[in-house]
Amino acid sequence: MNRPVDVAETTFHVRYAETDQMGVVHHAAYVVWLEEGRSSWMRKHGSSYAQFEREGLLLQVSEVQLRYRQPARYDRQITVRCWVEELKSRQITFSYEVIDTESGMLCANGYTKHICVNREGQVTTLPERWRRFLGVSPGG
Amino acid sequence: MNRPVDVAETTFHVRYAETDQMGVVHHAAYVVWLEEGRSSWMRKHGSSYAQFEREGLLLQVSEVQLRYRQPARYDRQITVRCWVEELKSRQITFSYEVIDTESGMLCANGYTKHICVNREGQVTTLPERWRRFLGVSPGG
Amino acid sequence: MNRPVDVAETTFHVRYAETDQMGVVHHAAYVVWLEEGRSSWMRKHGSSYAQFEREGLLLQVSEVQLRYRQPARYDRQITVRCWVEELKSRQITFSYEVIDTESGMLCANGYTKHICVNREGQVTTLPERWRRFLGVSPGG
Amino acid sequence: MNRPVDVAETTFHVRYAETDQMGVVHHAAYVVWLEEGRSSWMRKHGSSYAQFEREGLLLQVSEVQLRYRQPARYDRQITVRCWVEELKSRQITFSYEVIDTESGMLCANGYTKHICVNREGQVTTLPERWRRFLGVSPGG
Repeated sequence: MNRPVDVAETTFHVRYAETDQMGVVHHAAYVVWLEEGRSSWMRKHGSSYAQFEREGLLLQVSEVQLRYRQPARYDRQITVRCWVEELKSRQITFSYEVIDTESGMLCANGYTKHICVNREGQVTTLPERWRRFLGVSPGG
Repeated sequence: MNRPVDVAETTFHVRYAETDQMGVVHHAAYVVWLEEGRSSWMRKHGSSYAQFEREGLLLQVSEVQLRYRQPARYDRQITVRCWVEELKSRQITFSYEVIDTESGMLCANGYTKHICVNREGQVTTLPERWRRFLGVSPGG
Repeated sequence: MNRPVDVAETTFHVRYAETDQMGVVHHAAYVVWLEEGRSSWMRKHGSSYAQFEREGLLLQVSEVQLRYRQPARYDRQITVRCWVEELKSRQITFSYEVIDTESGMLCANGYTKHICVNREGQVTTLPERWRRFLGVSPGG
Repeated sequence: MNRPVDVAETTFHVRYAETDQMGVVHHAAYVVWLEEGRSSWMRKHGSSYAQFEREGLLLQVSEVQLRYRQPARYDRQITVRCWVEELKSRQITFSYEVIDTESGMLCANGYTKHICVNREGQVTTLPERWRRFLGVSPGG
């Protein structure tokens, strides 16, 4: 695959509540960070997932995979890099890197897969307008 | 006020994700435990908050207050004691004690206040049927 | 009390994970936001709570109180305003307002009380250096 | 691989805080459930992860993978089935099924991989005593 060219970067500080008694960020917190990376990707491309939902569509998560490389720590600034890895008519894959901003250290990377469902929970095709919106990445 | 006589007790183990790098349970986790105490109160009285919502009603939290006494710790069994402290036509107050089951140590206590709203977000009177259900406590 | 003059403001977007099936932000998420408001207050005054902990001190939460005014919603930008309300030798009180940035609507307000403990869990006096740091507010 | 024979089952009710505005359980909550499944596995085999940590060892999560099949919902009872999938000298893999207890519906399944590290963060070999403890599964 080509190098992703349309990466959205989101930055925030690690919250204390996101740590656990191991003294580092709990592994489930990263899953929430990926989601914030996706939300930010959409905002930076001029729309929002809130708008997507207002049109009666939901991007249900069908799979998540994460590899943890180096622990993230409280108060550090984190950068989540997010891009569209693959776009099919009924499925979209986002990829992510979670980075300690200052040091550039990779904390984790992974992907999420999503299917498009309507309010009744039925799998549907991504509307053409949204396919174009999401397909700005060369992975599209 | 009289001693509460209709207390529902819920027990569960502290989850690792609920700890923080202080080595004890994060204070926000208790707020979730109180909610599980309320849910359990309703289940033990023969209904459920899920049923309440299916009837188009929501018990919106309008206030929460918690005093932390002794830190709860990972893997310990916790008992949440919950009762109806006060019942008004448009407001209900639940009180709680969070206890380390084995030692009997009080970890936290507090209350939550709730107003009844409909799906449009308008404050409404608690239906008579639900007032009776919730009013089993002498505080009612 | 005088009007607070040393307020730190923190902004962020509501995360999807912070909503619940009521369609608005879950009330426990605000408790985490207050904490991020405190962290930000310290960063903006030139130190950090991480530094505080590195010196072997912990600011244990002893009480939290929150009143919920208007529901916060997904994807909206939130501003947490935080200031030192009261500073005693062994206790500090922070106050907060949680605001929907764009509309200026007050979503919630409240306070947290903290005691200073050492790594062994013993209550201690706030070191003079930290009292000065925290006492920049007129509430100090 | 042989059919796992040493499965620990943990049951609990879905918490309201675990739902999101899609009306179902948020996908990050499952990651916490898996962890509770592991904790329960250890308790049911006569030890605890708390004991593991008291000996100065940590089971750091190095990878998580989850496939979401059917949404779990508020107030339903959930069963997490957990077993040791693979045991190496420095790595352990747990597998999981998340099931809606009453209907038997599979909500999600997946695995987590862990490495054993000491308090200094160095990767170490799992002590023989713990290998025996964890190796009760035929996958060991």
